Amino acid sequence: MEKGFTVFPLDMDGLVDVAVVGCGYWGPNLIRNLVESKTCRKIICCDNNNEQLSKVSKRYPNLFYTTDFEEILADGSINAVLIATPVATHFGLAKKALQAGKHTFVEKPFTTSVEEGVELMELANSLGLTLMVGHTFEYSPPVLKIKELISAQELGTVYYISSTRVNLGLHQRDVSVIWDLAPHDLSMLLFWLEETPTRVFAMGKAFVQKGIPDVGFISLEFPGGVIAHVQVSWLSPSKLRRTTIVGSGKMLMYDDTEHIEKVKIFDKGVDFKEPQSFGEFQLSYRSGDIVSPKLDSYEPLRAEVDHFLACVLTGESPRTDAKSGLRVVSVLEAVERSIRNGSSVECVAHDVIA
Amino acid sequence: MEKGFTVFPLDMDGLVDVAVVGCGYWGPNLIRNLVESKTCRKIICCDNNNEQLSKVSKRYPNLFYTTDFEEILADGSINAVLIATPVATHFGLAKKALQAGKHTFVEKPFTTSVEEGVELMELANSLGLTLMVGHTFEYSPPVLKIKELISAQELGTVYYISSTRVNLGLHQRDVSVIWDLAPHDLSMLLFWLEETPTRVFAMGKAFVQKGIPDVGFISLEFPGGVIAHVQVSWLSPSKLRRTTIVGSGKMLMYDDTEHIEKVKIFDKGVDFKEPQSFGEFQLSYRSGDIVSPKLDSYEPLRAEVDHFLACVLTGESPRTDAKSGLRVVSVLEAVERSIRNGSSVECVAHDVIA
Amino acid sequence: MEKGFTVFPLDMDGLVDVAVVGCGYWGPNLIRNLVESKTCRKIICCDNNNEQLSKVSKRYPNLFYTTDFEEILADGSINAVLIATPVATHFGLAKKALQAGKHTFVEKPFTTSVEEGVELMELANSLGLTLMVGHTFEYSPPVLKIKELISAQELGTVYYISSTRVNLGLHQRDVSVIWDLAPHDLSMLLFWLEETPTRVFAMGKAFVQKGIPDVGFISLEFPGGVIAHVQVSWLSPSKLRRTTIVGSGKMLMYDDTEHIEKVKIFDKGVDFKEPQSFGEFQLSYRSGDIVSPKLDSYEPLRAEVDHFLACVLTGESPRTDAKSGLRVVSVLEAVERSIRNGSSVECVAHDVIA
Amino acid sequence: MEKGFTVFPLDMDGLVDVAVVGCGYWGPNLIRNLVESKTCRKIICCDNNNEQLSKVSKRYPNLFYTTDFEEILADGSINAVLIATPVATHFGLAKKALQAGKHTFVEKPFTTSVEEGVELMELANSLGLTLMVGHTFEYSPPVLKIKELISAQELGTVYYISSTRVNLGLHQRDVSVIWDLAPHDLSMLLFWLEETPTRVFAMGKAFVQKGIPDVGFISLEFPGGVIAHVQVSWLSPSKLRRTTIVGSGKMLMYDDTEHIEKVKIFDKGVDFKEPQSFGEFQLSYRSGDIVSPKLDSYEPLRAEVDHFLACVLTGESPRTDAKSGLRVVSVLEAVERSIRNGSSVECVAHDVIA
Repeated sequence: MEKGFTVFPLDMDGLVDVAVVGCGYWGPNLIRNLVESKTCRKIICCDNNNEQLSKVSKRYPNLFYTTDFEEILADGSINAVLIATPVATHFGLAKKALQAGKHTFVEKPFTTSVEEGVELMELANSLGLTLMVGHTFEYSPPVLKIKELISAQELGTVYYISSTRVNLGLHQRDVSVIWDLAPHDLSMLLFWLEETPTRVFAMGKAFVQKGIPDVGFISLEFPGGVIAHVQVSWLSPSKLRRTTIVGSGKMLMYDDTEHIEKVKIFDKGVDFKEPQSFGEFQLSYRSGDIVSPKLDSYEPLRAEVDHFLACVLTGESPRTDAKSGLRVVSVLEAVERSIRNGSSVECVAHDVIA
Repeated sequence: MEKGFTVFPLDMDGLVDVAVVGCGYWGPNLIRNLVESKTCRKIICCDNNNEQLSKVSKRYPNLFYTTDFEEILADGSINAVLIATPVATHFGLAKKALQAGKHTFVEKPFTTSVEEGVELMELANSLGLTLMVGHTFEYSPPVLKIKELISAQELGTVYYISSTRVNLGLHQRDVSVIWDLAPHDLSMLLFWLEETPTRVFAMGKAFVQKGIPDVGFISLEFPGGVIAHVQVSWLSPSKLRRTTIVGSGKMLMYDDTEHIEKVKIFDKGVDFKEPQSFGEFQLSYRSGDIVSPKLDSYEPLRAEVDHFLACVLTGESPRTDAKSGLRVVSVLEAVERSIRNGSSVECVAHDVIA
Repeated sequence: MEKGFTVFPLDMDGLVDVAVVGCGYWGPNLIRNLVESKTCRKIICCDNNNEQLSKVSKRYPNLFYTTDFEEILADGSINAVLIATPVATHFGLAKKALQAGKHTFVEKPFTTSVEEGVELMELANSLGLTLMVGHTFEYSPPVLKIKELISAQELGTVYYISSTRVNLGLHQRDVSVIWDLAPHDLSMLLFWLEETPTRVFAMGKAFVQKGIPDVGFISLEFPGGVIAHVQVSWLSPSKLRRTTIVGSGKMLMYDDTEHIEKVKIFDKGVDFKEPQSFGEFQLSYRSGDIVSPKLDSYEPLRAEVDHFLACVLTGESPRTDAKSGLRVVSVLEAVERSIRNGSSVECVAHDVIA
Repeated sequence: MEKGFTVFPLDMDGLVDVAVVGCGYWGPNLIRNLVESKTCRKIICCDNNNEQLSKVSKRYPNLFYTTDFEEILADGSINAVLIATPVATHFGLAKKALQAGKHTFVEKPFTTSVEEGVELMELANSLGLTLMVGHTFEYSPPVLKIKELISAQELGTVYYISSTRVNLGLHQRDVSVIWDLAPHDLSMLLFWLEETPTRVFAMGKAFVQKGIPDVGFISLEFPGGVIAHVQVSWLSPSKLRRTTIVGSGKMLMYDDTEHIEKVKIFDKGVDFKEPQSFGEFQLSYRSGDIVSPKLDSYEPLRAEVDHFLACVLTGESPRTDAKSGLRVVSVLEAVERSIRNGSSVECVAHDVIA
């Protein structure tokens, strides 16, 4: 694949021995992909909940299991640690893993604050260790196809992007819907546009659990002139994952709930017509073919996991590195601030993530 | 119909003689409905563009035509005037019509400012004339069905509403997409919720025509606790008219582009389960039948026009009266201010529209 | 347009004076298009039902109206007659019109039997008059686009076609759903494939009105190897107009109820892989882009009417001439025979329509 | 569940030791459900292809594996055998299994001929063994909901059923699309209507592989007056699994590719109006609510497997017993005969399956 990240098939001799920390909702997906990856050899699964471990061990009786994170840190054979625990624990666990010399993968969102993330990034840098954040969508075929189209100027100048990620549940108890669902859209936006918003304007509200917003409307301004809107909700009758990108040349819809036509490119737009005489300019609406391009059909998480293993082996910097994780966290912080203050908020331009 | 407004069949002897001012894009729809209405007798069509008039006269050779608005004012036989001109002219034309003693219907948006609207309202009141604003959606079967459901507490407490009204074009030259498309959603929201938002938070941008935003993201806070989002755009690959209403009891989707299942009621929601012992509460997700109720099938504009004629005859106050038009204008003003200032804006609580 | 039939804009001086016979359900559509056509001058509307006439005359007060068909025959100024009456009357009316020297347009289905149709065709030929049948779909943008694709071998060899035309109502009293709905699909099939089926296999049944089937399943074999299925029904919960065409190269779906993506071309198929060694051949499934081509956006009936008028003026043979009408009638007869006999039926190869 | 078949939770002490024969495409699904079933203890997986076995054993390292079917027959601990091999081998394997005293489950279609099926049925009867056929759809929530609605006369008298089961591939090498896909629809039809068709009318054709039809149009007449159509294809651009049931009272659509609204009930129909005076009767079209009922959400295969295990333990006769399998096979034979002969075919009324 020429997508800018190393991935399978990986013609290398090396094999990686890993630990997965957190075997609740998401961890088992990492484990499944690690089991099927040819680059991964030994897998230790770690969770402080014994019940979770025993569920996983029924499916994968040949892996190793422990409830003791310290055991992993002490295990010299383990090269890399993948962390899929609640976000509040990311910083502590990742810090320990890095300090123990392990290459580290952290699920999204990276950390609960920019401050935490910067500390991890600097630690990894100083130790020469891989630190990667699990922005899975940046490895998914439709998102990569869209990146390709935008880069190739197929859409012309991007005007605005509108994204909706709503469904019924699952209410988290520790983080709001902002931190739960918006990281997906934000990582896509930042990946596509290659810039971080300068201003954020958000409204959110907690309906079911006190103090934990389950609905959010997020408006974003990017330095290059693009505006964007992201709607997230745990309270919606239908599951929607729909992103519209409007450019000066073409327009695009990406519906991740579709099986077949996930991406549709509309050859539509508005063209200026020069005023014929001394009159006003004319607008004409163009409406051509609609194309749903063939997409690769691998599992994004598989590419992500393989990319992490490849980075561990080669020392290459991961596509979704700590900086990329930090950018998303910085926007999440701004969104939260905007909701709390009921006002628009500047996104702080941290030097480290510039 | 028991919808709270008088309408066909109208068992009255009286007949109304009317003038329609503005025969461009929308006027002919008013004319068609007036022609088919049994309550309307004489129709004068007025436009300063002769070409427009002659187009209409080909279709309706038996109506009267004039380019001179003053002629209408002077015509004692004309009881009522319907104004379907660009919004900037609403105030001037309506004021003259009222001063000439004509009952007046003004297309949405009512006026370009609250100030103008208040003056018209007071003038009509002082003269005892009917003054109605063309919020057509408040006469449409799906919108009325939703009103009925909300009033009957079928959805429980309304949490939030999200509405999308986007398509490609038509760019207006005098008003932004905010004033062009948002009045529809705002009039529905205010009609359903029976309150006016207290705070508005909007982002919009002009991509095609300088200074005239063609995309807008509008977030609204209502005094009763509901939040809402309205997205409007003249730059979108697909025509969407979709409103989601989430309540504590049920959820609802309204898609005005559907022919058959315009409204779908989802018996879905989140329920609390009392903590069994000393533990945490549990959330459980409920998912029952989905019902698409049968809707009446008349044309909303027809009901609206008939309601106006009925009010003229009976002196009854129209459902979408000047106050209703003013409320929408007051929100539009706030939205525009918010876009211009890049900040959240309080909706001024005008006494007159309280 | 290079579609093989002459149509607007028609740069001719001549104007045609016409009569429309039958002003019930369909006739007014012909009238509307004739009124808007620049080639048509005088229009007489004829119906033996005075009520129908007065409905139409309200909309078009400037046309001529009569209940007397003989009057039209006698009117020397009338060049052409368009017949939109129940099918049982087509033969008698068209025969008289031709005998009176009028160019004649007959709505589909052409006649109630091949015998009738042949007589009309021969009469028109002997008198040098235009005789055209109203197979409107052969003038519609999606059907023409599909014709173009098939002719250009874009789909490869056509394997099979499956078409569904079902909705709730309207039950006809004089003809079955076969004669009411199937002519559309059959005219498309014969137009695309340029051949007439050799064998027909149909099942149908009358559920609501005794003796008048309201549901039909029609299977067809074409001499070139294509098979086809047409399902028609007046008893269906949803309105479906959906045709699938499967070729050796690509596949196509045509959904006439869609506003935007009426035609979708799927770059999908099965490819043989040569056996590697002495093994079995391999099948591989190909799945590429899906394209919804931009279509022209005129009204098919308008093109049809204009084509008729052009043929009247130029003497050109119409695209949907009597032969084309006869071919469809011959299949309808075979379908009916098959339903009655409960067996498969050979389509008689009439010399005249070969 | 009150659906007429015993299933989970199964409050029994007994446990069943089983063998699954055939670990290719479908077998692993049986295995997965057996592994998760609490009623199943020991599982032997058998396939003559070692590669298939080793694939499965990687996922389930704790099961038993063998390439020798005789070994299973000889293993006294094995109570039951589940056969998921190509249909041509069903008869031979099932006969041996029964003769060895094993309760036997055979995947659909049951056998390649009625003759074979009758022999197996009689053998099982004479030995007092359970013999069940894997008509999975008869255990699926939407199909059971539809059965419930039909039984409760919710649809009124069923008029006709139209079913479409098409997709691209997978071409089988040993059986046509008729034997591969139609068993699903036929088993549903026979289950819902509780009768076997008397006449079959089918057209099919082999496009990709010589002699093995990959497209079929099947028309069926049932003794009670229902007609039905089933379309099956391995050559279709889209995957469709759509069944329409039209009754005198209501109409229903079942789309198995939908996640949420699999079943929709339309309160639609045609009603007679008594002639007012001496006139004709009037038809009026009724169009009420559309309801998508909540469905149970278990996996049908799981219920099927559990039901088999329950029947083994209790001696109860399975819902989809040999007779049920035979009825489907008898229709498949008739369909094949109809395609070969190009004519309509009577369904032989075998005494045994009457």
